[in-house]
Amino acid sequence: MKSIILNTPSCDSTIYCGEGAFKERTQYLKDKKLFVITDSNVHKIYAPLIKEAFGENYVFVMPAGEGSKNHTQLFKILSAMLENGVTRSSVVVALGGGVVGDVAGLAASLYMRGVKLVQIPTTLLSQVDSSVGGKTAVDFKGVKNVVGTFYQPGEVIVDPMFLNTLPKREIRCGLGEIIKYGALDKGIYKSLIKNRAHLKGIKFLEDITFDCIAHKAEVVRADERDVGGRRKTLNLGHTTGHAFELYYRRKSHGEFVLIGMYYELFIARRMGICGGRYADNLEKLIKKVIGKIPAYEDAERAAIFAKYDKKNTATTQVSVIVPKCEGESEEIKLQLEEYAGFIAQCRDSLLEG
Amino acid sequence: MKSIILNTPSCDSTIYCGEGAFKERTQYLKDKKLFVITDSNVHKIYAPLIKEAFGENYVFVMPAGEGSKNHTQLFKILSAMLENGVTRSSVVVALGGGVVGDVAGLAASLYMRGVKLVQIPTTLLSQVDSSVGGKTAVDFKGVKNVVGTFYQPGEVIVDPMFLNTLPKREIRCGLGEIIKYGALDKGIYKSLIKNRAHLKGIKFLEDITFDCIAHKAEVVRADERDVGGRRKTLNLGHTTGHAFELYYRRKSHGEFVLIGMYYELFIARRMGICGGRYADNLEKLIKKVIGKIPAYEDAERAAIFAKYDKKNTATTQVSVIVPKCEGESEEIKLQLEEYAGFIAQCRDSLLEG
Repeated sequence: MKSIILNTPSCDSTIYCGEGAFKERTQYLKDKKLFVITDSNVHKIYAPLIKEAFGENYVFVMPAGEGSKNHTQLFKILSAMLENGVTRSSVVVALGGGVVGDVAGLAASLYMRGVKLVQIPTTLLSQVDSSVGGKTAVDFKGVKNVVGTFYQPGEVIVDPMFLNTLPKREIRCGLGEIIKYGALDKGIYKSLIKNRAHLKGIKFLEDITFDCIAHKAEVVRADERDVGGRRKTLNLGHTTGHAFELYYRRKSHGEFVLIGMYYELFIARRMGICGGRYADNLEKLIKKVIGKIPAYEDAERAAIFAKYDKKNTATTQVSVIVPKCEGESEEIKLQLEEYAGFIAQCRDSLLEG
Repeated sequence: MKSIILNTPSCDSTIYCGEGAFKERTQYLKDKKLFVITDSNVHKIYAPLIKEAFGENYVFVMPAGEGSKNHTQLFKILSAMLENGVTRSSVVVALGGGVVGDVAGLAASLYMRGVKLVQIPTTLLSQVDSSVGGKTAVDFKGVKNVVGTFYQPGEVIVDPMFLNTLPKREIRCGLGEIIKYGALDKGIYKSLIKNRAHLKGIKFLEDITFDCIAHKAEVVRADERDVGGRRKTLNLGHTTGHAFELYYRRKSHGEFVLIGMYYELFIARRMGICGGRYADNLEKLIKKVIGKIPAYEDAERAAIFAKYDKKNTATTQVSVIVPKCEGESEEIKLQLEEYAGFIAQCRDSLLEG
């Protein structure tokens, strides 16, 4: 088990990562009053483990899925916290994927203006990305993550044990974010290239997860509230990914990030920002994980949805983080029509290819 | 106009205080996209001023009163923010008393994980206390302030102009918090004693408001998240005040703080913590503002409600901040029954007196 300390102005967060982390770290929670939040999928598989680790503490079970990421669910949780006598010295445990982490994190940050939060991510996507960094949120009126807080968990427990029960699609989604980190971090890129034959192996995933978390921790340390530009780089693949996610909705977040990266890599190539063997390798990694890239018929219309991203403060311009060379990315700003034009060109090239 | 800079780990906040502050500072907001939140009382009196200062920007008008401090109202505001295209570079202006400040502050902290907030408190109570320090909240399931955040306003504009249209009762409420500061701060105490003949004069209130804010800023700087003990001192009068407020509900917050201070001063005297001329003077100040102290028939039952204060993590013990001597207070911890016993004794002494 390895650990990373993430100091930010608001809180010190410790991330424990590796085999055995769950068993070892939950020991230390035994003498606290806990309020455990999980979802119906996790509860179905891990009920005995939950009982063993958290004993008689209250376990709130949310319906699994993105549909639970709303303020109705949030206030159901806050209500149960009140009814169960949660106090400022209690600890909220979020055991699940990104949705559980986001909603439980928001509940923990709001209840009595903040009680201690322990994130125990159970999906690859939440392990490499969403459980670290303190972003919490619910969706509202069709807008993703528009109501939320920055609230650092006191502890994040990342145990690869949970990956064994994940559906293949969930592994693919997590690899989407991992490849994003590959485009931002030289070491992760090299590791991906070296291990490209067995990207889905549990041992490889355990190691690369730690590297991704270490990268993210460094970025969050420098720019916790996403204002200094550094945290913005983590948005690589996301401008287009989010736009497609809003418009098409069928796939899941990690898949859209991969598709977004493909389209944005196309833009970087066309603009002469990225090219050669590096661009070819990135493209191969993306395709290796997702297989066929969809050539969306109305991609230019979907692209317009990029303007609804909350990171965009301008209404006619879109900010895109594109890969440049090993370990380097670049922010480009495009007029909305220009951006949609590139997206359409990429779609056409997919149809031709 | 004077100003105080309040640096905390999360944000730098500037408080502008004095005659003309509103006109002078709202000038600088003219080139921003604003979302103004106020209540029906303030809007009725100040519609022309609002129009002049904020032009065509959207003005959200909440129904006046404590009844609006709930999550339904909060999500109405968030919904209007979305519909009006508020972005991360917009500014939320909270123009009103404590309820507007608390709900609007929470909305600003949650929308896109935080947009800039300007507090313009219009009541004496919110000017001396709630607009400074970054506590935001709504009530939930009958529990006061149980859902909220710590979120510093970028700017607080405190203009005594608004005091001219306040009902007398509102001035009394604000004086409740001011006398609390008198029990914590030697300078404020001396100023109260010196000016006791004209406590309700606007010029005196303008000066003492600045002193109270300066005191609070110093405390918040040292203990933003209310964990180090220092911010706890601001709770003087509030343990008993909140318990009575929960139980009796008829009076308003500032009045209950005054009544709470009276009962808690009684405890401090009985325990030999506070006494002599200082205790007599404090008592006189309290009585001068509120007049007759209620001798609640079932005061010991009401006192039990102190255990529902979110600052209490123990369930059988109550923490009370009591005055000690000029500029000094002390935290005492009492068993619930012992505390209720003191409260009953104080009630009995009022009946006898």
